[in-house]
Amino acid sequence: MSALRHTLSVDLGARSYPIYIGRGLLDADLLRAHVPSRQVLLVTNDTVAPLYLQRLQASLGDLQVAHCILPDGEQYKTLETLNRIFDVLLQKRFDRGCTLIALGGGVVGDITGFAAASYQRGVHFIQVPTTLLAQVDSSVGGKTGVNHPLGKNMIGAFYQPRCVLIDTDSLNTLDDRQLSAGLAEVIKYGLINDAEFFAWLEQNHQLLRQRDADALAFAIHRSCADKAAVVAADERESGQRALLNLGHTFGHAIETGMGYGAWLHGEAVAAGMCMAAQMSLRLGWFDAVELQRLLALTAACGLPTWAPAQLGAERMLELMAVDKKVLAGKLRLVLLKGIGQALVSADFAAEALQDTLNRGLSQA
Amino acid sequence: MSALRHTLSVDLGARSYPIYIGRGLLDADLLRAHVPSRQVLLVTNDTVAPLYLQRLQASLGDLQVAHCILPDGEQYKTLETLNRIFDVLLQKRFDRGCTLIALGGGVVGDITGFAAASYQRGVHFIQVPTTLLAQVDSSVGGKTGVNHPLGKNMIGAFYQPRCVLIDTDSLNTLDDRQLSAGLAEVIKYGLINDAEFFAWLEQNHQLLRQRDADALAFAIHRSCADKAAVVAADERESGQRALLNLGHTFGHAIETGMGYGAWLHGEAVAAGMCMAAQMSLRLGWFDAVELQRLLALTAACGLPTWAPAQLGAERMLELMAVDKKVLAGKLRLVLLKGIGQALVSADFAAEALQDTLNRGLSQA
Repeated sequence: MSALRHTLSVDLGARSYPIYIGRGLLDADLLRAHVPSRQVLLVTNDTVAPLYLQRLQASLGDLQVAHCILPDGEQYKTLETLNRIFDVLLQKRFDRGCTLIALGGGVVGDITGFAAASYQRGVHFIQVPTTLLAQVDSSVGGKTGVNHPLGKNMIGAFYQPRCVLIDTDSLNTLDDRQLSAGLAEVIKYGLINDAEFFAWLEQNHQLLRQRDADALAFAIHRSCADKAAVVAADERESGQRALLNLGHTFGHAIETGMGYGAWLHGEAVAAGMCMAAQMSLRLGWFDAVELQRLLALTAACGLPTWAPAQLGAERMLELMAVDKKVLAGKLRLVLLKGIGQALVSADFAAEALQDTLNRGLSQA
Repeated sequence: MSALRHTLSVDLGARSYPIYIGRGLLDADLLRAHVPSRQVLLVTNDTVAPLYLQRLQASLGDLQVAHCILPDGEQYKTLETLNRIFDVLLQKRFDRGCTLIALGGGVVGDITGFAAASYQRGVHFIQVPTTLLAQVDSSVGGKTGVNHPLGKNMIGAFYQPRCVLIDTDSLNTLDDRQLSAGLAEVIKYGLINDAEFFAWLEQNHQLLRQRDADALAFAIHRSCADKAAVVAADERESGQRALLNLGHTFGHAIETGMGYGAWLHGEAVAAGMCMAAQMSLRLGWFDAVELQRLLALTAACGLPTWAPAQLGAERMLELMAVDKKVLAGKLRLVLLKGIGQALVSADFAAEALQDTLNRGLSQA
């Protein structure tokens, strides 16, 4: 059934867990084998539910399975939606031994993970990501949470799943825009510390956009492996994990400023990475040829390379000031010394950022 | 200033922290010495704020201190109130290095602790409990959270403070009903595993209700020491920590059934302990003489010994079924083999509970 299956491990001592990547995994017995409880709540959204909910439910036939279907979209990643999950759990009298399974994209995964972290102060959690973005990024590493009107992902917990199950066939039902958004996070791993992967993406982005199964499986596996290594070294982001936020300070500002859901997270991150690269160039750290390579790959993946013109530089700065990487009043950014060489730095003149925003936005 | 000061430690490895108990500690430099950040949010309620907020703020004069004043009462221990804390933190642009200080009773401590656990996935947290109940119980041990309309403390996190600062002088402004409610948790420690302390309470409850400073300091110190030992051995309640819930399954049912805030938490726990003792007697585990001692001490402390008559046995059972100690559909209760000998058990006939509720409620 699952001809090709990759298995990775996120190495976190007693909280280590496997990531399974392959075709047809939703129909295999893998999921059932990882559920440690009788009571299971499947959380998904109204886009994914008609496609995969029944199949997943069928594979858990002998258990007490309930489901909770959330509205689809970043604008619903709120405390109010979180509370809907608690409503179901309590109405069904789910106990402290129960398991929550997130079936869907990054929003479903983040909100379900935070529900699992908080319900009765912590229950079991499994990720079944169905979007490329969730498969390569948000389902791995244990960051969970919801948004606040004043900032993205400002409320949440570090909470690791028991396993991550990635059925690459689920990408066949993903629309093109969502697929492109996922590619933004894939490009990110190349940029941060994997120049070889970046070069591979320059050669193979067409195959990925055409949903070639082998190319997708390779890209997902490589992305998860890159991320798992960083998370294992720095679970709670006291150091190098912050590199994974490349493009995210700019990106979160775009998402918050445009209203959650207007831009997809991956689109905002793509624009944010290009802006970080542009600023790095202005600082004399990054090379113009490499910048052109990044802009070309980003555009070839169907992704934006700048923030929307309507967000002025001033508003962007204001929104960036609430970033989680701000410490002691100082904004820290992930910037680039080269493709495959990201760094976290607060060591730049405020004007470098301001000029980047002014110039970039006038070009947009 | 602080003539008599006790210091205890909650021994949790890298997350160990001190508990300071004494008079005038709010005016000492102790708090300032434990704040690790420039940004501080004081969270309190509208009863405590006029009494102590300024004094606490003054002791942190050189820092960037903001405050958030919540409405007083268990009925406000909700996700909505929690969100008010996030509103302030984000409006003030507090970063991931900031510190939240809970100044107040159990509700303020629980909700502020959960805010600290969740804001940007975790910031610093300090407890300054001002009610007897918070001083002897809820401020120690890291249980944080909010209520859901369908169950008490169903949403939360285990999150330890950096220190607990108990100024026994703050009890001088506590009303009699609140003081009695705190005594319920004090009696609890005696009942669970400290028969000597129970006997001391039988001799000294008058002094406590008269707010004798030495008696209070002794009772608080002994209670915190008893609790700290249990928490150090079983932080996440996989075993013996459940004993600390003596009276709480009955008690939470009373609180939820009557509407949060109608009964004080300590009042509900007092009634719950007497009901657990009555049930233990019915099971042949507990002695009638010891039951009389418990009922006498509880009444002498101004506390109820039964659930309110208006909650029928059926409703109580329904409410008790959502308890966090339910596992695999089986209700587990903390019961008594004697004063100072509590145990967790699911090993009882359903009728024993039902009969206890029927008989007890008809007596009420």
